Amino acid sequence: MYRTHTCGELNIASAGSEVTLCGWVQKSRDLGGMTFIDLRDRYGITQLVFNIDTDKKLCEEARKLGREYVIQASGKVVERSSKNLKIPTGEIEIAVSSLTVLNPSELPPFTIEDETDGGDELRMKYRYLDLRRPVLKQNIYLRHVIAREVRKYMDSLGFIEIETPVLINSTPEGARDFVVPSRLNPGKFYALPQSPQTFKQLLMAAGFDKYFQIVKCFRDEDLRADRQPEFTQIDCEMSFVEQEDILTTFEGMAKHLFREVKGINFTEQFRRLSYEEALNSYGTDKPDLRFDMKFTDITCIVKGKGFPVFDSAEYAGGITVSGCSEYTRRQLDELTEFVKRPQIGAKGLVYVRYGADGSLKSSADKFFSPCDIELWAKETKSSPGDLILILAGAKKKTLAALSELRLEMGRRLGQRNPDNYVPLWVVDFPLLEWDDETQRYYAMHHPFTSPKPEDMPFMDADPGKARANAYDLVINGIEIGGGSIRIHDSSVQKQMFRTLGFSEEEAASQFGFIIDAFRYGAPPHGGIAFGLDRLTAVFAGQDSIRDFIAFPKNNAGKDVMIDSPSVISPKQLDELMISVRK
Amino acid sequence: MYRTHTCGELNIASAGSEVTLCGWVQKSRDLGGMTFIDLRDRYGITQLVFNIDTDKKLCEEARKLGREYVIQASGKVVERSSKNLKIPTGEIEIAVSSLTVLNPSELPPFTIEDETDGGDELRMKYRYLDLRRPVLKQNIYLRHVIAREVRKYMDSLGFIEIETPVLINSTPEGARDFVVPSRLNPGKFYALPQSPQTFKQLLMAAGFDKYFQIVKCFRDEDLRADRQPEFTQIDCEMSFVEQEDILTTFEGMAKHLFREVKGINFTEQFRRLSYEEALNSYGTDKPDLRFDMKFTDITCIVKGKGFPVFDSAEYAGGITVSGCSEYTRRQLDELTEFVKRPQIGAKGLVYVRYGADGSLKSSADKFFSPCDIELWAKETKSSPGDLILILAGAKKKTLAALSELRLEMGRRLGQRNPDNYVPLWVVDFPLLEWDDETQRYYAMHHPFTSPKPEDMPFMDADPGKARANAYDLVINGIEIGGGSIRIHDSSVQKQMFRTLGFSEEEAASQFGFIIDAFRYGAPPHGGIAFGLDRLTAVFAGQDSIRDFIAFPKNNAGKDVMIDSPSVISPKQLDELMISVRK
Repeated sequence: MYRTHTCGELNIASAGSEVTLCGWVQKSRDLGGMTFIDLRDRYGITQLVFNIDTDKKLCEEARKLGREYVIQASGKVVERSSKNLKIPTGEIEIAVSSLTVLNPSELPPFTIEDETDGGDELRMKYRYLDLRRPVLKQNIYLRHVIAREVRKYMDSLGFIEIETPVLINSTPEGARDFVVPSRLNPGKFYALPQSPQTFKQLLMAAGFDKYFQIVKCFRDEDLRADRQPEFTQIDCEMSFVEQEDILTTFEGMAKHLFREVKGINFTEQFRRLSYEEALNSYGTDKPDLRFDMKFTDITCIVKGKGFPVFDSAEYAGGITVSGCSEYTRRQLDELTEFVKRPQIGAKGLVYVRYGADGSLKSSADKFFSPCDIELWAKETKSSPGDLILILAGAKKKTLAALSELRLEMGRRLGQRNPDNYVPLWVVDFPLLEWDDETQRYYAMHHPFTSPKPEDMPFMDADPGKARANAYDLVINGIEIGGGSIRIHDSSVQKQMFRTLGFSEEEAASQFGFIIDAFRYGAPPHGGIAFGLDRLTAVFAGQDSIRDFIAFPKNNAGKDVMIDSPSVISPKQLDELMISVRK
Repeated sequence: MYRTHTCGELNIASAGSEVTLCGWVQKSRDLGGMTFIDLRDRYGITQLVFNIDTDKKLCEEARKLGREYVIQASGKVVERSSKNLKIPTGEIEIAVSSLTVLNPSELPPFTIEDETDGGDELRMKYRYLDLRRPVLKQNIYLRHVIAREVRKYMDSLGFIEIETPVLINSTPEGARDFVVPSRLNPGKFYALPQSPQTFKQLLMAAGFDKYFQIVKCFRDEDLRADRQPEFTQIDCEMSFVEQEDILTTFEGMAKHLFREVKGINFTEQFRRLSYEEALNSYGTDKPDLRFDMKFTDITCIVKGKGFPVFDSAEYAGGITVSGCSEYTRRQLDELTEFVKRPQIGAKGLVYVRYGADGSLKSSADKFFSPCDIELWAKETKSSPGDLILILAGAKKKTLAALSELRLEMGRRLGQRNPDNYVPLWVVDFPLLEWDDETQRYYAMHHPFTSPKPEDMPFMDADPGKARANAYDLVINGIEIGGGSIRIHDSSVQKQMFRTLGFSEEEAASQFGFIIDAFRYGAPPHGGIAFGLDRLTAVFAGQDSIRDFIAFPKNNAGKDVMIDSPSVISPKQLDELMISVRK
């Protein structure tokens, strides 16, 4: 071993002992006859000190060390004269008696500190240097701790972690698959799994009644800022359970994580909202409940007064923003601009200022009597001092726009504190989604999701109305997991395929093996999957998942550090019996 | 929840309580007015009993249940009149009062029992049924326990599990890569990792000084019986360590596993052999040390006596087989046939029977005096009652053949008990291997393995002589892990590439990013990787890894259950800008 201690563990109790440390030169400074070096490793920073009077040669060597040199230093732990109480090792320093350069370093392309001068592109290219920054190191450590605690919890309940294959078959439903040409089977391809969905259901058929796996999944999508072609799921499935059992089990997991990782104790049951309630009250199936600001549907009371915007609207809804009645014209214009942005798409914004003096002033005064406006204030449960913001138009679009406005107002009011966590189950999702383009229904979750038994009659008559035994776990407006109770009855499965427009042959060719499996005694079962990347980011109070992945890809799906993907040799293409088109 | 208990947990202490169980009908039998059903789940088997006098309708329902039906049964736990003490639940049965068929089953294609009537092919096609057999279930559970205990041990030492990417670049050294065409980057390909080698080294450069990962790796090889295209590694790396630190740390892991998983306490240090010793003493770099039967090199004493086989031999070696002096002519002929098999390839076998009476009888009596034979006996440390077996020929081939003969004799003597575990470190591997076909050296481990400092002078002069800081962990003759101290000095790395015949440009184009990384202060580091599939098989005392993987591929790289790989749609090929050659 090159060292006796790490750079994070020595303190005043160690004073007097002889130690050897290894690490990277964080910075170095000369003060008169003394040279001080901050030596960094994964665990912290320890100050090394060299005295020109005591050992001139050694001190001169120390002065030659550049940033990021890897060194080994031995010496005595001594109490510092000027202490730094901000770091655990700040009361001591090492009076170095011998020094070895283990590896020199060229000057790094950016500074290795939390506040760095390196741009995104540069830091991605030198990811191994970026990862030296404490902030990134903590992210990666947090991810490890979360995965460890998930496993600990699952193991305590008797779940078995089982690896499912990475080389599987392409499935036409859902997102695009990455494929892998098979050399041993020319013209044929494996596909990388978007999730282990079918395999975990087969494991249930096999009698493993409590399965989980922390597993890489793959999706060949056009990447958005916060998507990665490979991502990690905490994938879980149980047999002989109903929806309530799944919710209880995994609410337990979330609580375990909050307690062990964040020191937060959730004693109450997590809130639950139906999909419909969530949509009507917050305009989204993943509401941020760190603040309330619930929507009020005022469609009925605003119509028929001659205001064309409202009269033509399918829906009009308002939110009450506490204490913002003094918003200036400019601030209100800003909000109007905000909702008119193309990605939000509202046509305009109607507001009511409910003055502290009880006065009500609306931007739609022209069309509405004071009495009308008073009714709005009453319906939206507003009080003096509040600001009422109203959007109107097509229902679906307006709900979504109002949701964005609500989030913006929450942000402005400082009600979206990343250290405050409000988890929520959204339940009773619709089973199916209608797609206008292909003129057919798609499974909202996947084709194995069970309809609610009481909604089975809708399956033929009005499939869009059928609700599923499906649920999402949402934290602070971010969906971190979702799942469903699966179909285990083959007649229900057949009905589902029929509703999705599959012929029996199509169903058999795409899902034959799982239909087969279910003929030999499949137990009732259900499960859930969590996005580990996103869960970790949420636990760190951050939005982007990229900094919680050691080696992420950029938005073009590239790893610029290793320059992947890249061309392969003609010999490889020959062996695989494929050609690249020009 | 559909059940109150599992089928493995009820015993006499539960007698009198009302319970609900779920599971699969293992078998059913009618005895007079009684019907007995063995109900099976992951945890065990519990007997259900139905009495035609008590409840005729229910009993008749029970009689209709077929094998592998999934049922739910409620009733009272009662003490059995005829107990089965072989199973934990054998003292009780459930007097069933209500019964629900959760899912019927068609007759399965083979019997779901440890001793099954299903052939390999059939069981692979219905893997989910095969996995219902207790023996397979235990294998998968064992794998889970080993992975869990590995993580527990690594975590206790401060290792962090870090996920490395699955979509990386193809590397021309080593085995064939699986590749993944990139739709977003037409004409370019990702490759699936054969190991996270370069990434774990980058993590060391990034300052994560203790990394591990249980991770899928991929190799597109022509499959042999015991290889899988995807396999799982326990991948580990440490910084600021020397070889001794790695051996100590991972010997600790192996001991932890033996203790926690098998209840075996290894108090002594594992044996160590150099590669050279292993080869000379046992003819292999992975000797099975459950028995000794060491080789004696008798080349010098057998030559020059006129026996052409020996006179022309580069090497002659013998093993002493205790207590086999009474082997019959037929048994000895069998052994001769054994060593002459093409896969072993010896020309013949010379033996000496050392009778209990002290007599020495050799098959080469014609050419050697009693005095010569006596010397052989003395050199091989044989005693009366022993059988001496001698092979001769080209050294490398003869050592390998003698190794096979040694294993065969160990087997015949019953000295290869799967419940006896003898771990061994093999160290001081050669750095390079010469390849006759391409007329160049290849790295025996990989191009980042560090030569022993004292062997650096050989690197230019006689590269084949250089030994590496590389090591394997061998248990019972099976290599379960291997690793090395890596090169962290860029001048040594350059020398290595030179010795391997890479031009600077070639080295830069293939390994540029890691060469770059090492310019910015790479710490001394080293690591090891274990094959989880193999480790699990060894812990179960079995040879084939296939039954320790939930969904393995067959020897053609196919998953016959899901019929993978398969053809993909023309649309997918178009999007990927590739064509399949006819």
